[in-house]
Amino acid sequence: MTLDTTTLGTADPLLKAVLGGVTVYDLGRTLYQGMPQSPNHPAYTHSLPRRHGDRMRPDGGSAANDIVVMGTHVGTHIDALAHVSQDGRLYGGVDADEALQDGRYPEHGVHTIAPMVRRGVLLDVPRALGEEYCAAGYEITTADLERAEQLQGTPVRAGDVVLIRSGWGRHFDDPDRNVYIGAASGVPGVGEAGAKWLAARGAHAVGADTIAFECLPPGKGHSVLPAHRVLLVERGVYIIEALALEEAAAAGAHEFTFILSPLPLLGATGSPVRPLAVIGRS
Amino acid sequence: MTLDTTTLGTADPLLKAVLGGVTVYDLGRTLYQGMPQSPNHPAYTHSLPRRHGDRMRPDGGSAANDIVVMGTHVGTHIDALAHVSQDGRLYGGVDADEALQDGRYPEHGVHTIAPMVRRGVLLDVPRALGEEYCAAGYEITTADLERAEQLQGTPVRAGDVVLIRSGWGRHFDDPDRNVYIGAASGVPGVGEAGAKWLAARGAHAVGADTIAFECLPPGKGHSVLPAHRVLLVERGVYIIEALALEEAAAAGAHEFTFILSPLPLLGATGSPVRPLAVIGRS
Amino acid sequence: MTLDTTTLGTADPLLKAVLGGVTVYDLGRTLYQGMPQSPNHPAYTHSLPRRHGDRMRPDGGSAANDIVVMGTHVGTHIDALAHVSQDGRLYGGVDADEALQDGRYPEHGVHTIAPMVRRGVLLDVPRALGEEYCAAGYEITTADLERAEQLQGTPVRAGDVVLIRSGWGRHFDDPDRNVYIGAASGVPGVGEAGAKWLAARGAHAVGADTIAFECLPPGKGHSVLPAHRVLLVERGVYIIEALALEEAAAAGAHEFTFILSPLPLLGATGSPVRPLAVIGRS
Amino acid sequence: MTLDTTTLGTADPLLKAVLGGVTVYDLGRTLYQGMPQSPNHPAYTHSLPRRHGDRMRPDGGSAANDIVVMGTHVGTHIDALAHVSQDGRLYGGVDADEALQDGRYPEHGVHTIAPMVRRGVLLDVPRALGEEYCAAGYEITTADLERAEQLQGTPVRAGDVVLIRSGWGRHFDDPDRNVYIGAASGVPGVGEAGAKWLAARGAHAVGADTIAFECLPPGKGHSVLPAHRVLLVERGVYIIEALALEEAAAAGAHEFTFILSPLPLLGATGSPVRPLAVIGRS
Repeated sequence: MTLDTTTLGTADPLLKAVLGGVTVYDLGRTLYQGMPQSPNHPAYTHSLPRRHGDRMRPDGGSAANDIVVMGTHVGTHIDALAHVSQDGRLYGGVDADEALQDGRYPEHGVHTIAPMVRRGVLLDVPRALGEEYCAAGYEITTADLERAEQLQGTPVRAGDVVLIRSGWGRHFDDPDRNVYIGAASGVPGVGEAGAKWLAARGAHAVGADTIAFECLPPGKGHSVLPAHRVLLVERGVYIIEALALEEAAAAGAHEFTFILSPLPLLGATGSPVRPLAVIGRS
Repeated sequence: MTLDTTTLGTADPLLKAVLGGVTVYDLGRTLYQGMPQSPNHPAYTHSLPRRHGDRMRPDGGSAANDIVVMGTHVGTHIDALAHVSQDGRLYGGVDADEALQDGRYPEHGVHTIAPMVRRGVLLDVPRALGEEYCAAGYEITTADLERAEQLQGTPVRAGDVVLIRSGWGRHFDDPDRNVYIGAASGVPGVGEAGAKWLAARGAHAVGADTIAFECLPPGKGHSVLPAHRVLLVERGVYIIEALALEEAAAAGAHEFTFILSPLPLLGATGSPVRPLAVIGRS
Repeated sequence: MTLDTTTLGTADPLLKAVLGGVTVYDLGRTLYQGMPQSPNHPAYTHSLPRRHGDRMRPDGGSAANDIVVMGTHVGTHIDALAHVSQDGRLYGGVDADEALQDGRYPEHGVHTIAPMVRRGVLLDVPRALGEEYCAAGYEITTADLERAEQLQGTPVRAGDVVLIRSGWGRHFDDPDRNVYIGAASGVPGVGEAGAKWLAARGAHAVGADTIAFECLPPGKGHSVLPAHRVLLVERGVYIIEALALEEAAAAGAHEFTFILSPLPLLGATGSPVRPLAVIGRS
Repeated sequence: MTLDTTTLGTADPLLKAVLGGVTVYDLGRTLYQGMPQSPNHPAYTHSLPRRHGDRMRPDGGSAANDIVVMGTHVGTHIDALAHVSQDGRLYGGVDADEALQDGRYPEHGVHTIAPMVRRGVLLDVPRALGEEYCAAGYEITTADLERAEQLQGTPVRAGDVVLIRSGWGRHFDDPDRNVYIGAASGVPGVGEAGAKWLAARGAHAVGADTIAFECLPPGKGHSVLPAHRVLLVERGVYIIEALALEEAAAAGAHEFTFILSPLPLLGATGSPVRPLAVIGRS
């Protein structure tokens, strides 16, 4: 058989770009027992029911396998629209009680999130502010976001996925996992104003390097989450949390192809994900 | 602020292709309770510990959340190299017992699989054979694979991900889930010869629209799995199972950018995934 | 120190009887993966996250541990009153929706079942009918129950726990677990009339050697469960299922001290249990 | 039908004592999410997959059910002999690796613990010492145990179950669950000497109102557990932890019929339990 390699990928500009070489930034955190996660969600737990050698087949083959127990808002994850309601309503005015069918949310569940292959913009806020990272509890302003856009030359456009770096991600692997959760210290992030700005720009989804995406004042925990209300309930914008942004930020990767493919867990309110920021060779 | 939209994506051929428009084929199955899965693995189970209204915040906000219990070889999923051993050895001659650390596999675990953004080739075997689908228990031959390559004009190259369509995927949502599992009927797929052919071509990963990737003779179940041995243990080629290939096949999508981003579950032997086949507009 | 052994147990007739020697019949089934259980409930699943040697302490000590995932209506188990509602009401007219607090049932949950140390009566129905066991789908009549009472000389009294043997328990360890579940064949047990008879006698709790306690006609499954309605909703009588009664029946143990101590799982609808029938030496 | 009530229970001294009236002390803790438990074990987690009304049958009936995820050493629980090994050996010199079969411990697993209906002795140590409770980290001495025996007039005999009250149980429901766990403060209990004394007396099982049974010095955690080694590995004595002893102690119930019926979880290393102390009316 003669392979006609000359035609490889020629017709498809996407595949051509891929074959030309791409840099892939892995924006997902490794999931491990004991990692920081919100105490509101079942802890990520992993065990091997079967290890190699437990059951050896006559031909010498053996398989190991796993059991995983977890909430869906663990590790790097995406919030489906079904995650949050306001005054009994989900996005689009859907009645939250009526949305339930057989114990889950067929409407607005995480299985309804289409895979994303979109322009992504990383707004490196501390860099724009001339700092290494945002302080605990700092509310990132719309002026901060616009300064990042301009400095980077990466304006947000309708349909984009916007990732906001606060620098808080450096705490993810702290031996004391309460540091990253930040209930006592507070956590930096946008507030209601920033959320409205993102929605007004037409963001398809937004994300951050923190556990709750939005600014948490010290000692308040998750008692009020206005950005979640604005984005998930009022504007239908997905939220991605606990992103690993340090490597991409260090490389100056501020604009890229953002790829996200959440697990289509029927009727669930979220999914752990491993998003990618991909850049072609120009 | 003036947005300089003229520069958007110009420097990056990948992003340019994405902005030019892409078609995304979703190759992942929706995960739901009762879906067919191998009885060797813990059943996918989902429940909402908290529904909207269970805990209303003073401001009228409310969050629903999930607990998921599952094996990692459920739904559409990828096998890590740690999944299978032969004569006590994993890929690369690693001792399977010594590879264990603290109850999991840091070496060859699913967290070691790099995200894939690669050329993908779908070999539509029944189409190459002039049939609608392969018969139960049919062993797909290397001649079949080569015929599909040639008819489609999509030769397999080193580093590609090769997806083999048998047509068996039409059974996934059968009310009797034993039909898709196919223990009694047998399931079509490649055998040892096909696995060697795929490895010899330099496939980075391979997949199929069946639960065990390889040919299962009627009534034999998973008692012997030579293709798993060849691919995972001898050649270090990942295996993707229970793919949804019907839509892409019907559209004639035989060559594409294949994207896969498995959950980095530390030391686990596999992960549910939602792979994508993406085609740019030429 | 001089032990005054002469006084041991003298003041307490219960302890005296225990020290005099007792025979303990274990009425609980061993819980194992793959055992028969209703498909309505999450499957019993067990894995060892840590085995001996995974983490050795400096002094040579090591601990192994477990993770268990299960429904609560698995193995031998008890139904709490919160398990079943009729027309939106639990026992005592409690509104089933209002009974929920924070996602569970503080009222009528299994944690509200007081431990039982009571007279128990085993009604051996096949023995009373001169048979080895009741046929599949046979509805045990009130005449059958009364005949067993009389033949055995063990009339049911108010406050007793009444265990009904059908002989179906012989199927529990059948390699095909569908045999014990009996959806196709039907399962013997009391119907609405028998349930009313038991409640009228003042039974505190009732049990059987089948998966659903009551008669299941062939092919009907759990579509209608009148005895559950009568006992749990109308009369507040607990139901114990999947009892192991063969050993006690073979020994002619028809009257005994019945002991049951369900796990106090806050707000749950049931609990696996290991009930005992204990007989003193006369 | 004429009930021959005169014969009720006459032949069986145990049942006669039960019918004469018993007081039941519930020694088991309610299991709830967020309760204190050792971080070594999967957290107790409970959710209702189905609530009333989710699926209404045509006749107006509805069933709610549960999913429970947990370690087995949670709540009040018993340690099976398979839980701890020393230098690779379980009780009786059993090789810990060879004891594994198909990923669990058929030998010395919790399913091998026979239900207990035995004399129980509660040794109220603080009462014997003239205190309200033992101080954090206090090692209970053999002299303390003997003083309690004598003061109470309840010498330990071979075959008894011995429950040691330290008074630490008052912390179980502390809003800060770390208080009961006591890693920083230390926890009172017997040490190696006390364990040897209990074994020498021939105790069948021992228990305490703390999470680890034995004395934990401040800041040391579970790094060394000599009493576990003595009791589980060297002497084959079961250990019961996190008992609720306050009510029985307040009532002066120091000698009783102790009843324990662990869930027979095949090959597991422990089980949550709800033990009872029962006293007849003299």
